[in-house]
Amino acid sequence: MLLQVIYLIAITAEAASGAIMGMRRRMDLFGVCVVGTVTALGGGTIRDVLLGRHPLGWVAHPEYLFFTVGAALAAACLVRFMHQVRMAFLVLDALGLVAFAVIGCDIAAATDAHPSIVVLMGMVTGICGGLLRDVLCNQVPLVLRRDLYASVALATGALYVLLQRYGVAHDHATWIALLVGFLFRLVAIRKGWALPVFTARRQLED
Amino acid sequence: MLLQVIYLIAITAEAASGAIMGMRRRMDLFGVCVVGTVTALGGGTIRDVLLGRHPLGWVAHPEYLFFTVGAALAAACLVRFMHQVRMAFLVLDALGLVAFAVIGCDIAAATDAHPSIVVLMGMVTGICGGLLRDVLCNQVPLVLRRDLYASVALATGALYVLLQRYGVAHDHATWIALLVGFLFRLVAIRKGWALPVFTARRQLED
Amino acid sequence: MLLQVIYLIAITAEAASGAIMGMRRRMDLFGVCVVGTVTALGGGTIRDVLLGRHPLGWVAHPEYLFFTVGAALAAACLVRFMHQVRMAFLVLDALGLVAFAVIGCDIAAATDAHPSIVVLMGMVTGICGGLLRDVLCNQVPLVLRRDLYASVALATGALYVLLQRYGVAHDHATWIALLVGFLFRLVAIRKGWALPVFTARRQLED
Repeated sequence: MLLQVIYLIAITAEAASGAIMGMRRRMDLFGVCVVGTVTALGGGTIRDVLLGRHPLGWVAHPEYLFFTVGAALAAACLVRFMHQVRMAFLVLDALGLVAFAVIGCDIAAATDAHPSIVVLMGMVTGICGGLLRDVLCNQVPLVLRRDLYASVALATGALYVLLQRYGVAHDHATWIALLVGFLFRLVAIRKGWALPVFTARRQLED
Repeated sequence: MLLQVIYLIAITAEAASGAIMGMRRRMDLFGVCVVGTVTALGGGTIRDVLLGRHPLGWVAHPEYLFFTVGAALAAACLVRFMHQVRMAFLVLDALGLVAFAVIGCDIAAATDAHPSIVVLMGMVTGICGGLLRDVLCNQVPLVLRRDLYASVALATGALYVLLQRYGVAHDHATWIALLVGFLFRLVAIRKGWALPVFTARRQLED
Repeated sequence: MLLQVIYLIAITAEAASGAIMGMRRRMDLFGVCVVGTVTALGGGTIRDVLLGRHPLGWVAHPEYLFFTVGAALAAACLVRFMHQVRMAFLVLDALGLVAFAVIGCDIAAATDAHPSIVVLMGMVTGICGGLLRDVLCNQVPLVLRRDLYASVALATGALYVLLQRYGVAHDHATWIALLVGFLFRLVAIRKGWALPVFTARRQLED
């Protein structure tokens, strides 16, 4: 299914961006792979632990780990050229954010949780990977400083849940929520509603 | 039940104090709400995850989240006047600490855990919210530096468990433990057995 | 069983080394005990939470906590002499690392997880205690900077799993993996393939 493909693209992009952050902290190759993997899979892991849902996604599908470790290693080799594809990263990161939010809502909804918890779990899935990354990198999580990142995850999840509430078919709701959330995030970046990720990161490191 | 009312007062006070800490770290409004909520509900969440107890309290009662987010927003608006009510905060925080400890013991006891684990889980419920708050704010947790905060939670839980062991009725044990623990904490603050929270926080930030 | 004895030696050594790190951060006696306990039992706790395995080891065996708290208190009293036994610590830490890895693999294998997850959980058991310690001490985790620590846990777990795959009896595989991993770690330290722990720690603290 297409959402699955988007998910794999998302964890690959998240792992690469996490790996770059790890390199900024002078981590060794192992640390870079760990931070990349935690960035990519940490959000879903926290969501499943909070929901008491087992086995975890990457425990049932260890192949996800090869994607994240591979992406981290690739980022380590190509870091010299990364700044040239910064915009591509922001776009993939935006795609990952909304995909994580929608997938997180689906999984929480399957547990018959209250709609507000469903939306919240979508946000947790979207932001907690980056939050764990920043804790491992010993800095105040960026997402707690940049309003329009988590807000996009909240808006995407809320829209997704509301559309289904009002009878929109699951698939249609999925695509509408993904598209609207994705455009919302891109506009937020363009309009400077939020600082570009890497700039903000550099500032925090000083 | 009165303990429930005390619990709601406690999470509201904890959320407000967490929000203030977040503002000190120049977090945006979203970050302030997250740190406030984590401070208020993080202790119980860690306890339930360690005990494998699901659904979590705030997943079953999403209304708790409205209390914590509301308190965080209120603190953000009224932060200018907060230093004038510092003592009120310390009193509410002390009330929250002992209430969390007693509630944590009850929940752990319901899982037939060893009495030492029951007391430990009371302490976990009391201190881990502030511990997560400090990790998110990128500082060494205050509770690991200020002896008479965690000690109060331990003493409250131990007294509570012992009283029930020696045949004191559950309700009586609850009120005795709450009262003794609360007074213990207040005396500790008055006598300077522990630094006032906000002063200690400011020192840590330098 | 001998592995159980090695485990108790390991958590005692890990608790003492965690306590020393806490003292470096000017934590009070309570904080030192918490950091020591988290260092010793945190890896197994994270493994069990990720696997959804309850009750946790130290919840079922609270006596472990007396070992870790006792070791932390002993380290606090004897810290003046600790630098004289630094090498002994590195040896006990190496023993703990490989013991944690083998025990973690056994527990993960009992859940019928994929072999790659079994090896990963061995590593999680070995390194996550120190990772939590560093998060509580507000520094970038050492294990993400020192390659040949986590690598030893991975190699030990992989060897252990492969030996059993190829029909080697469980006990023999255990001892071979423990011995090879232990020697690998000691050689890595001797050859300077990794910085001695305390030196690296001091550097990070500046």
